[in-house]
Amino acid sequence: MIETRLTRQFGLSVPVVLAPMARVAGGRLAAAVSRAGGLGLIGGGYCDAAWIAEQMDLLRDHAGRAPFGVGLITWALDAVPEVLGQVLAQGPQAVFLSFGDPRPHADAIHAAGARLICQVQDMTGARQALAAGADVIVAQGAEAGGHGAGHGRGRATMTLVPEVVDLVAAERPEVLVLAAGGITDGRGLAAALMLGADGVVCGTRFWAAAEALVPEGQARAALAVDGDATFRSSLVDVARGLDWPAPYDLRGMRNAFSAQWEGRLEALAADPAARAAWAEAAANGDAGIAAPIVGEGIGLIRDAPGAAQIMARMAQEAAQRLGHGARPVGT
Amino acid sequence: MIETRLTRQFGLSVPVVLAPMARVAGGRLAAAVSRAGGLGLIGGGYCDAAWIAEQMDLLRDHAGRAPFGVGLITWALDAVPEVLGQVLAQGPQAVFLSFGDPRPHADAIHAAGARLICQVQDMTGARQALAAGADVIVAQGAEAGGHGAGHGRGRATMTLVPEVVDLVAAERPEVLVLAAGGITDGRGLAAALMLGADGVVCGTRFWAAAEALVPEGQARAALAVDGDATFRSSLVDVARGLDWPAPYDLRGMRNAFSAQWEGRLEALAADPAARAAWAEAAANGDAGIAAPIVGEGIGLIRDAPGAAQIMARMAQEAAQRLGHGARPVGT
Ligand SMILES: Cc1cc2nc3c(=O)[nH]c(=O)nc-3n(C[C@H](O)[C@H](O)[C@H](O)COP(=O)(O)O)c2cc1C
Ligand SMILES: Cc1cc2nc3c(=O)[nH]c(=O)nc-3n(C[C@H](O)[C@H](O)[C@H](O)COP(=O)(O)O)c2cc1C
Repeated sequence: MIETRLTRQFGLSVPVVLAPMARVAGGRLAAAVSRAGGLGLIGGGYCDAAWIAEQMDLLRDHAGRAPFGVGLITWALDAVPEVLGQVLAQGPQAVFLSFGDPRPHADAIHAAGARLICQVQDMTGARQALAAGADVIVAQGAEAGGHGAGHGRGRATMTLVPEVVDLVAAERPEVLVLAAGGITDGRGLAAALMLGADGVVCGTRFWAAAEALVPEGQARAALAVDGDATFRSSLVDVARGLDWPAPYDLRGMRNAFSAQWEGRLEALAADPAARAAWAEAAANGDAGIAAPIVGEGIGLIRDAPGAAQIMARMAQEAAQRLGHGARPVGT
Repeated sequence: MIETRLTRQFGLSVPVVLAPMARVAGGRLAAAVSRAGGLGLIGGGYCDAAWIAEQMDLLRDHAGRAPFGVGLITWALDAVPEVLGQVLAQGPQAVFLSFGDPRPHADAIHAAGARLICQVQDMTGARQALAAGADVIVAQGAEAGGHGAGHGRGRATMTLVPEVVDLVAAERPEVLVLAAGGITDGRGLAAALMLGADGVVCGTRFWAAAEALVPEGQARAALAVDGDATFRSSLVDVARGLDWPAPYDLRGMRNAFSAQWEGRLEALAADPAARAAWAEAAANGDAGIAAPIVGEGIGLIRDAPGAAQIMARMAQEAAQRLGHGARPVGT
């Protein structure tokens, strides 16, 4: 039990939120995290209504009455805003928006009684999230797996978190701040609390959970590497034909395919055979072509147990570091 | 008083090391940090023997018998190895090497009774430092000010520190690990200790100290910005004609000059007038042309007091976060 404003407001026992990893954080993983005392979020990503409905059913089967939420990619939601209504009809405690302007969607979320969690990559984003009326701001460093700020625009968790904490303290102190990027164990959780965060958002650590929707070949490849093995690039998005807006790109592992195509993204976009090979490899979990989408923290991960065990380890290690009875200042 | 293996081994009262910022960390700044209970390191950088001798005299005038050390850029030292003998003759407690292969210099340092501190940017570097017989490894994240790993090769402090800690624990547990990159206050110090570090190395925070050798115009410009204002590039090195090896580049502030030349480094190299303008601006502290060389942590810094006050604040804030009597696990 580690108590912070996050655990109190959401009824959690550990201040850990499952990152809404698109198509990786399904209903079973979200349920497992919520049942273990964290906040499970379904990775609604590109707003595929059928997939979200299916995962929501799984979540209900497994989570009971534990709190949960859904994450959506904001620029994808802009194209199909009706998906938000579908999500809100399920009664989530929170909707997690990232990668775009949250303002057009904030009122609907609040009107449904859900909390708005906004993920940001820099101070400009943090100010925008405050203007949108965010209840929770996730400060995401560029060491994170998946999408985030690229092209030299990224911040690091170590500096972004306390700077957002200071901004929020000055402008809207009731807003919570969570740290995302590179947090995989109790050490990282304890560090984030020291920086002033109310909790953490973990992606990569749960990517390597038994319940994650990850092909086995990719999971095996990722568990074998150290943390130097990842890089930021638009390569994966070009390979799968996703037109992400600037300044976002994606952190994932390097592999033979990236060695072949890095620096030649236009050629890749114009090569249907290469892109078909990537799609097939992604379906099969062939990590030599479709690389695991994980962050630098993968170097700290050596196994893929159930989410409940991951949560228990994190909580225990963090509590030990924080000291008996120690509570983060200001909570 | 925060006790760790670092404070015990070096006789410090706060586990904080002054980064050996080339030409910025002179004798007065190093002395101030050492007198305040940290470890002051002179920024010997490119191994200018006369400058180092001069700063060493200032250090002796101000530091009394407090411990101190000297930092040298390894690839620069390779060209003038005799400078190491000059440095060791002064009896430093430590020599801090970064950016190159430390192995050729390790024996001389140990023979003189000094400790070898190696700064690394990734796991490959950490393994090399262990092979060199480093007594202390500094895990430097890419959010740091000054030089570090660039071109997408950088790691973040949040993930690199615990991964190096685990490597060292498995291979040579007597070696200390320090965190560098983005640490500017007691929150960052406490976070680094939670990650398993024995202490921290701070550059940007002391760049904005009263004793730092920084022109006033630059100091003023840096205190006004948020942490989004910096970027990594080779631009400054091209402007001043320094031929840094791959994969290193430098983090500093964006400004009008960088907006003009970014992406056109070959043109800048071939433009003597632009380079002369940069040199003149650097001498005058004109931050619109010669940008401050600081890290992301500059967004957390709002004043430039003496180093003693910086140290006192960090120690007090960290101790408060860590809790009364709390000590980092494993120290
Ligand atoms: C496989 C994967 C998919 C992700 N998909 C999304 C997403 O759809 N929406 C989102 O906001 N963040 C997404 N993220 C980023 C996470 O929200 C979070 O910021 C990140 O995982 C935190 O860093 P970590 O991976 O080091 O824990 C994804 C991350 C991963 C690893
Ligand atoms: C102005 C400046 C000059 C630097 N010069 C050196 C140097 O000569 N040698 C070195 O090893 N590191 C140098 N560094 C990097 C520091 O050793 C350290 O890694 C860094 O400052 C830590 O990150 P921070 O700036 O966020 O505190 C320099 C940093 C700055 C800001």
